[in-house]
Amino acid sequence: MTMSEKPALPYYAVIFTSCRTDDDDGYAEMARQMVALGTSHPGCLGFESVNDGDQGISVSYWKDLDSINRWKQNADHMLAQKAGREKWYGRYTTRIAKVERHYSFEK
Amino acid sequence: MTMSEKPALPYYAVIFTSCRTDDDDGYAEMARQMVALGTSHPGCLGFESVNDGDQGISVSYWKDLDSINRWKQNADHMLAQKAGREKWYGRYTTRIAKVERHYSFEK
Repeated sequence: MTMSEKPALPYYAVIFTSCRTDDDDGYAEMARQMVALGTSHPGCLGFESVNDGDQGISVSYWKDLDSINRWKQNADHMLAQKAGREKWYGRYTTRIAKVERHYSFEK
Repeated sequence: MTMSEKPALPYYAVIFTSCRTDDDDGYAEMARQMVALGTSHPGCLGFESVNDGDQGISVSYWKDLDSINRWKQNADHMLAQKAGREKWYGRYTTRIAKVERHYSFEK
């Protein structure tokens, strides 16, 4: 899904906002792997991610809550979450939200 | 609201993902004004915004759908939206989503 695509409503968004530590060791490669793995996970509709070095917002889109729960429990993803807490993130918040309306603009 | 604060559930998130044009004229000042104005709008719980120059994700949090609708119709905000379509944004998507669960981590 690219950002201007709009799946059938309702669907779910996982909003992940984070502040990084100074430890960059392995972060970029793990982030790349998790986007690739997540995107191919059943029920995933797409990922969008922006970071400015210190802060990041990633939003992943999902067909339903079951798909989100399965992704949260994925073994590789759980290892990445653990490493994230130990090394890369000073803090983060995850919010699970049901998308009820959407509209887009394109030049 | 800072990113690690968690208002009473449920509340609403407006996820605004955008790609910028090359036209920066007036953008930073307008973005600053809209965050200040939006944050003080009745029902707004907070704003989070990250951009890397080309792409941006902004998430604002709201008490309810009525607050979001009133903010969308705010006169100054409507002028900013119009200027955004004419000058600053090549495309954007807005999604309105009900936050059902949230959790956070802090070192």
